[in-house]
Amino acid sequence: MAHKAPITSPLNDQDQDTTGKMLQATLVDLIDLHLVAKQAHWNVVGRFFRDVHLHLDELVTVARGFADDVAERASALGVSPDGRARTVAENSGLSKFEGDWRSDREVTEAITQALLEVVRRLRVRIDESDKTDQVTQDLFIDIARELEKQHWMWEAKLAS
Amino acid sequence: MAHKAPITSPLNDQDQDTTGKMLQATLVDLIDLHLVAKQAHWNVVGRFFRDVHLHLDELVTVARGFADDVAERASALGVSPDGRARTVAENSGLSKFEGDWRSDREVTEAITQALLEVVRRLRVRIDESDKTDQVTQDLFIDIARELEKQHWMWEAKLAS
Amino acid sequence: MAHKAPITSPLNDQDQDTTGKMLQATLVDLIDLHLVAKQAHWNVVGRFFRDVHLHLDELVTVARGFADDVAERASALGVSPDGRARTVAENSGLSKFEGDWRSDREVTEAITQALLEVVRRLRVRIDESDKTDQVTQDLFIDIARELEKQHWMWEAKLAS
Amino acid sequence: MAHKAPITSPLNDQDQDTTGKMLQATLVDLIDLHLVAKQAHWNVVGRFFRDVHLHLDELVTVARGFADDVAERASALGVSPDGRARTVAENSGLSKFEGDWRSDREVTEAITQALLEVVRRLRVRIDESDKTDQVTQDLFIDIARELEKQHWMWEAKLAS
Amino acid sequence: MAHKAPITSPLNDQDQDTTGKMLQATLVDLIDLHLVAKQAHWNVVGRFFRDVHLHLDELVTVARGFADDVAERASALGVSPDGRARTVAENSGLSKFEGDWRSDREVTEAITQALLEVVRRLRVRIDESDKTDQVTQDLFIDIARELEKQHWMWEAKLAS
Amino acid sequence: MAHKAPITSPLNDQDQDTTGKMLQATLVDLIDLHLVAKQAHWNVVGRFFRDVHLHLDELVTVARGFADDVAERASALGVSPDGRARTVAENSGLSKFEGDWRSDREVTEAITQALLEVVRRLRVRIDESDKTDQVTQDLFIDIARELEKQHWMWEAKLAS
Amino acid sequence: MAHKAPITSPLNDQDQDTTGKMLQATLVDLIDLHLVAKQAHWNVVGRFFRDVHLHLDELVTVARGFADDVAERASALGVSPDGRARTVAENSGLSKFEGDWRSDREVTEAITQALLEVVRRLRVRIDESDKTDQVTQDLFIDIARELEKQHWMWEAKLAS
Amino acid sequence: MAHKAPITSPLNDQDQDTTGKMLQATLVDLIDLHLVAKQAHWNVVGRFFRDVHLHLDELVTVARGFADDVAERASALGVSPDGRARTVAENSGLSKFEGDWRSDREVTEAITQALLEVVRRLRVRIDESDKTDQVTQDLFIDIARELEKQHWMWEAKLAS
Amino acid sequence: MAHKAPITSPLNDQDQDTTGKMLQATLVDLIDLHLVAKQAHWNVVGRFFRDVHLHLDELVTVARGFADDVAERASALGVSPDGRARTVAENSGLSKFEGDWRSDREVTEAITQALLEVVRRLRVRIDESDKTDQVTQDLFIDIARELEKQHWMWEAKLAS
Amino acid sequence: MAHKAPITSPLNDQDQDTTGKMLQATLVDLIDLHLVAKQAHWNVVGRFFRDVHLHLDELVTVARGFADDVAERASALGVSPDGRARTVAENSGLSKFEGDWRSDREVTEAITQALLEVVRRLRVRIDESDKTDQVTQDLFIDIARELEKQHWMWEAKLAS
Amino acid sequence: MAHKAPITSPLNDQDQDTTGKMLQATLVDLIDLHLVAKQAHWNVVGRFFRDVHLHLDELVTVARGFADDVAERASALGVSPDGRARTVAENSGLSKFEGDWRSDREVTEAITQALLEVVRRLRVRIDESDKTDQVTQDLFIDIARELEKQHWMWEAKLAS
Amino acid sequence: MAHKAPITSPLNDQDQDTTGKMLQATLVDLIDLHLVAKQAHWNVVGRFFRDVHLHLDELVTVARGFADDVAERASALGVSPDGRARTVAENSGLSKFEGDWRSDREVTEAITQALLEVVRRLRVRIDESDKTDQVTQDLFIDIARELEKQHWMWEAKLAS
Repeated sequence: MAHKAPITSPLNDQDQDTTGKMLQATLVDLIDLHLVAKQAHWNVVGRFFRDVHLHLDELVTVARGFADDVAERASALGVSPDGRARTVAENSGLSKFEGDWRSDREVTEAITQALLEVVRRLRVRIDESDKTDQVTQDLFIDIARELEKQHWMWEAKLAS
Repeated sequence: MAHKAPITSPLNDQDQDTTGKMLQATLVDLIDLHLVAKQAHWNVVGRFFRDVHLHLDELVTVARGFADDVAERASALGVSPDGRARTVAENSGLSKFEGDWRSDREVTEAITQALLEVVRRLRVRIDESDKTDQVTQDLFIDIARELEKQHWMWEAKLAS
Repeated sequence: MAHKAPITSPLNDQDQDTTGKMLQATLVDLIDLHLVAKQAHWNVVGRFFRDVHLHLDELVTVARGFADDVAERASALGVSPDGRARTVAENSGLSKFEGDWRSDREVTEAITQALLEVVRRLRVRIDESDKTDQVTQDLFIDIARELEKQHWMWEAKLAS
Repeated sequence: MAHKAPITSPLNDQDQDTTGKMLQATLVDLIDLHLVAKQAHWNVVGRFFRDVHLHLDELVTVARGFADDVAERASALGVSPDGRARTVAENSGLSKFEGDWRSDREVTEAITQALLEVVRRLRVRIDESDKTDQVTQDLFIDIARELEKQHWMWEAKLAS
Repeated sequence: MAHKAPITSPLNDQDQDTTGKMLQATLVDLIDLHLVAKQAHWNVVGRFFRDVHLHLDELVTVARGFADDVAERASALGVSPDGRARTVAENSGLSKFEGDWRSDREVTEAITQALLEVVRRLRVRIDESDKTDQVTQDLFIDIARELEKQHWMWEAKLAS
Repeated sequence: MAHKAPITSPLNDQDQDTTGKMLQATLVDLIDLHLVAKQAHWNVVGRFFRDVHLHLDELVTVARGFADDVAERASALGVSPDGRARTVAENSGLSKFEGDWRSDREVTEAITQALLEVVRRLRVRIDESDKTDQVTQDLFIDIARELEKQHWMWEAKLAS
Repeated sequence: MAHKAPITSPLNDQDQDTTGKMLQATLVDLIDLHLVAKQAHWNVVGRFFRDVHLHLDELVTVARGFADDVAERASALGVSPDGRARTVAENSGLSKFEGDWRSDREVTEAITQALLEVVRRLRVRIDESDKTDQVTQDLFIDIARELEKQHWMWEAKLAS
Repeated sequence: MAHKAPITSPLNDQDQDTTGKMLQATLVDLIDLHLVAKQAHWNVVGRFFRDVHLHLDELVTVARGFADDVAERASALGVSPDGRARTVAENSGLSKFEGDWRSDREVTEAITQALLEVVRRLRVRIDESDKTDQVTQDLFIDIARELEKQHWMWEAKLAS
Repeated sequence: MAHKAPITSPLNDQDQDTTGKMLQATLVDLIDLHLVAKQAHWNVVGRFFRDVHLHLDELVTVARGFADDVAERASALGVSPDGRARTVAENSGLSKFEGDWRSDREVTEAITQALLEVVRRLRVRIDESDKTDQVTQDLFIDIARELEKQHWMWEAKLAS
Repeated sequence: MAHKAPITSPLNDQDQDTTGKMLQATLVDLIDLHLVAKQAHWNVVGRFFRDVHLHLDELVTVARGFADDVAERASALGVSPDGRARTVAENSGLSKFEGDWRSDREVTEAITQALLEVVRRLRVRIDESDKTDQVTQDLFIDIARELEKQHWMWEAKLAS
Repeated sequence: MAHKAPITSPLNDQDQDTTGKMLQATLVDLIDLHLVAKQAHWNVVGRFFRDVHLHLDELVTVARGFADDVAERASALGVSPDGRARTVAENSGLSKFEGDWRSDREVTEAITQALLEVVRRLRVRIDESDKTDQVTQDLFIDIARELEKQHWMWEAKLAS
Repeated sequence: MAHKAPITSPLNDQDQDTTGKMLQATLVDLIDLHLVAKQAHWNVVGRFFRDVHLHLDELVTVARGFADDVAERASALGVSPDGRARTVAENSGLSKFEGDWRSDREVTEAITQALLEVVRRLRVRIDESDKTDQVTQDLFIDIARELEKQHWMWEAKLAS
């Protein structure tokens, strides 16, 4: 199909390009986050199984919702988003999540770490998008607000 | 973590192994199906944009629900399921879905084809699981019933 | 219109033909069942009027839902379903339901009888579909489970 | 059963007879309309499959609801309504709806035509019932208001 | 308080007076109907206790709703409605409902009779209001349609 | 009908008689209260029309609910309750509520007064029922708790 | 676009023309009514601010719903409705509503007046449509019934 | 009462007898399972009190629902089900659950064990019912699918 | 497990002991009541099948809810409740409910009798708990209020 | 009425004035947008009638909601908003929407264009309000985010 | 404001004074309880973070609801309630809850202790109010029933 | 407990410190606002009692929701929030709210004033947080937007 630009962007070419790349990188992070959360949801074992199992489903819901918002924001800017499995596997910014059964403690540490990584990259994009598109910046801020809250709730379990 | 078998299987080793592999293969197909459906949901253009955009969300819901059922069925059999991005990228049985904007016709053809592929592999597993685990077979039958219905609805749009 | 086969069947021609005929026969029975149930709903009189009137609406809902499932199963197999009034009038397997006002006792007997007839034909199709399409068989089993339950509830009223 | 007149009519014999016949004719039209709409719902194919498939379910709901109102209005007037398959097949005022798969265009034309036919017969009954029973007339007016709206929505698709 | 006419009527004085009297008479009938229905709801005994007890609550809901509509219609016409206990006791058109425990059969007969009485008076008012206020007439028709339906359902229980 | 005592009372004859009379008196008060509240709901005029109109509907709901509880409590004790219009008109303990349009201030004063009257009679019955039936007493206490709250809310509007 | 008559009218040309004009005039009144109600909703001040602010939102909901019904009734008759801002500004039958902040009393008087104006024009159309289209007349009656009720509630606040 | 066989069975005598016994044994297991789950729900103590307390209520809901399905399936086959306390106490296949307060660990082990026992017996019945009644077999498969999932969730807590 | 008293009681030892025994006895009665109600729900036959079948489910809901309240009240007082099948079978105060199919009349008599038995024992405990724990007494009163109402509704069916 | 400034503004006079003008201009655009969307909703014809008809109602809901937010934001800043028909007709920034029936393609192009116009003006106001009131800016950003998304969905239909 | 007694009390002066003081003391305890519960909700850390965090929100809901009931009960008795921050800080009967992050164990102990303190004071007031106002006593009993249940659930976590 | 910093902050120490103090100050204001609103809810008297009583509950809901958001934002930044009664009493920025019954006018003035105070402090924090944490700033902006709207609605009642 030869449609290069079916959607008129409200941004100039430069801002569209820069903002589009930040949205694409965020999309990949969020899809990976929800796949990792589901993987942990199915493979966690230990006394806190149910606590972690249920808590992860909240995270799945959050990550899926924001992935949709981010991809549709890219489309609205005239930028084709890419959320296919291979793209996610090759471009995600998250640390590798090991396969097989995992203890509740291991899962809690891994999710806390994953959230911190995603948030740190988001904060850089909040600064950059201030100059290219304040509307997109507002979306990044919404995501950061929620994920920083999720991060607190997971890290709070590691205190002892 | 050294937990090799934290969950007692209701099946003997042989049946557990065979059934587990079928579930793992189905899981990968279904996760890929929902990622492809979301990709199409964001990138479709053309007169039928809204029709296809909304129809795809039904498919996403169906695929996500069954992926969860399948992975948790594996866990219940004492088999650790693997639904991480790289595993999906390397093992999915679906044809490649091209990136970039796609016309409504292209999307409709690709989804029809993807559903047919998933259903065909499922029908083989329905036959095999008859000998290893009728409980899992019942789940495969449920999935096939729904996906064959979805397939009809997508293919019906291609008649002209 | 010349569309003979717009939908690709997951079955071979022979199984498609046999299964399709069983689905068509079931569809006709279920549509007639719901028309008869509505007819009784409007024409019943007697002390148990309200009991029977309300009970029949449950049956209408059940019969309508399964008729839809059966017809869409046929479509999914690439077989065009036929649920028009004349087709139903000429092919239904139910005994004739007399017109005019009917006593609550007469209605209860007629509905009990109708359910028994539909269930008996379904049990034959459950056996046959085991060889042609287990996915369709699963649907026949679901219908039989529910209609045998309904049959018990109606026949229980006839004990004295 | 010998119950000729279990229900006391609020009308005199003449008005009861005339009004009862109009209700019976309307009942048959509406049952046929919903059977035809379901038939089309299952057999439509073409690019507009989903649009037509969903739109028809609205019509099914409307037709079923009014059929119930009309039949119960007859009962309330002491007239036994008849909605059995054979009665519908032999007395419906709708044009024949062909079997087999139908294109979306063919279905849209047939439904538009069917609605027009039902509405035209209703308008005659609105005039007649003005003299026999204004309460029944009010029901005919409600049905006409809704079906004329449905007719507009289907015919609007045929403009080009 | 000296407010004789705080509300501007959309009708001329003559029509307002005639219509207002019909509304007041209907209000009294409907309040009495719901008090009688409640009385029966509490005092019915016999094998059909639960059938009658539950059926009466539907009637209570219907009667209360219409009483409110009728009283507010009077207010909207600038006519003060009167629904106090003494006014109801002295002006209701319903036959006396005996106190103490009542058999299910007695209650069914009394309610059937009460509905017939209310409906008959309503039909006279439908004719009269055609000349004074068609908006009020439409309300009377709505009430008659529902109460004639209720009447059928109660009388149907008396057939044997 | 000759049923003098179809319901076995959990109380002895003396306590049943005393408690039954208190319940009957409360029933009459509550039915009158809801009829008065509806009367005011329709006839109030003045700047606070909407405030009072909506507030009265809360009172109607409360009074109807408790009237039902009280009457069914009498039935449960084997005492036939009497809530017919004439019984209410002749036995209610409430002051007369004048007909015709009423100012918002007049209505507020009348309702405040009516609530005070009902509550005062209830408090006497709470004391008496302590000796005859603590289960009925608990119901009187529930009613008093709610009506004293309603009373405060109406009287609060009279402060100035 | 050259579509002069894409929708087949159930009326003859004369009745269609007359009825269509009445519907168009009603549409303009109702759109203006809801714009005025929103204007007042935002600009009212005074002790009764909240009472009036909330009451107006009910009116907005009522006016919007009927505007939709009226416009779609025109479409169903094959008459193109016109509800654009300029058409409303130039053809509305309502008195001018002044801009800037308005006291609660001023708003109450203006809304009461506006409702009276709309109702009076509606009553003329109810009479006229009796001869051209009883189905449309039924819609006009529904609107009048509701708006006369709203009018009473607003005017009741002006009594003092 | 002399009713030996008020319900006509869709099975022959032999299959009815064998299937009926399996259903009766399953019913007893499921009722005991829900009584044990409630007992644990009330008596568990320890750091995981709330986790276990809430998790048990899910199991209660599952067990109650299936007990109802199983008993009504027996009735539908013309076999009288027996779910009385003494029958359960004497025939349940579950290990004894000790009285008094129980630690969260003890409860988790006991529930895991109970689920394993019920599932093992169910798997035997799935095999047997394949020959006597596939409709009942389908119900056993549904129960096994859900209870094997519950078993995994409880056993996962025991891994460490 | 050695936890003899993990929960601090708000009562002194004597009152805790007396109140605890009353709660335990009530718990056993209520669990048996709901098992008997379910048994009857499945085994009733006769013209009133549906009436009794549905009515029993209300009783099941009531009995289950109160059993939970009573057991948790015991726990709150530091007394371990015992609701296991054998404990219920050996300690219930209800008359034996015969197995096998039962006529609607037999069931109605048995349930009426069972409710009377439970209520009579409850009334003794209301008196006793007045001296040991008014908070528990309030719970007993709530249960008695509801069960006496249920009793009336069942006994009302026996009047003739 | 002489109320010039009944509401204390949180802004200084200059910022209040500038921000107030931007809000007023946005209000007019949004009211016109929803009137145009409704106009199109009623007048669209063509194969995509239903797709466009339903899609427009989403836009109506969005535009109405934001119009309310914007007007109430003005009020909160002490600026009287003006949303009357004439003000909208004379000040809207949208291109004229032609009357009469319109094809689905024409409507799609007009709505896409209208959304682009509204978004472009909003982006200027986002920049300006950054200096006068960041709270209002946040509202403008929310509106732009949603309308840019809506714009994408409409323009996507024009690609071919 | 000089309103000393705008609300007529149903109690004599002495009882009003005594009961009012008990209600005021209870109000202060309950407000402090919900502030402490919220404080713990935000500051808890440790493995049981989520368990405690969620459990505390149930307590917040309970405490807020009862605080409202208690304050409105005081108003209904003509006693002005005082729930301001300083009043709570100076009069609460709860032990001090330390600031800063708190471990899950510390929080569980503190909440268990707080509930015990509140319950003990309530039990004294239940005894006293028996002589001054049984309606208020009933409210105190309701609160004690619920808080004793909450206390059990928190203390159960401390058993080990 | 020695946990000084269990939560990793996404901010550097300086920004964390400054932002944390602003959040703490906002938390105290919002808790005080909701306690004051509840105090007024219980103590208001006068003709506008119900208007003010209901309006205050909206404010309570708003203030509670934002207090929770603000406290959890502090936690997410690694700053322990303090919302205890004494902290609120000593640090709130609101003017003192007098005890005892208050007239509706006094309450309206006090709430209008309180909202203005909270908003003014928030606007300073919006400016400051622009430099320390834009995510927190976004939360402050959301709160200001809502409270400025609430302020308008309360102040609008004071215009006359």
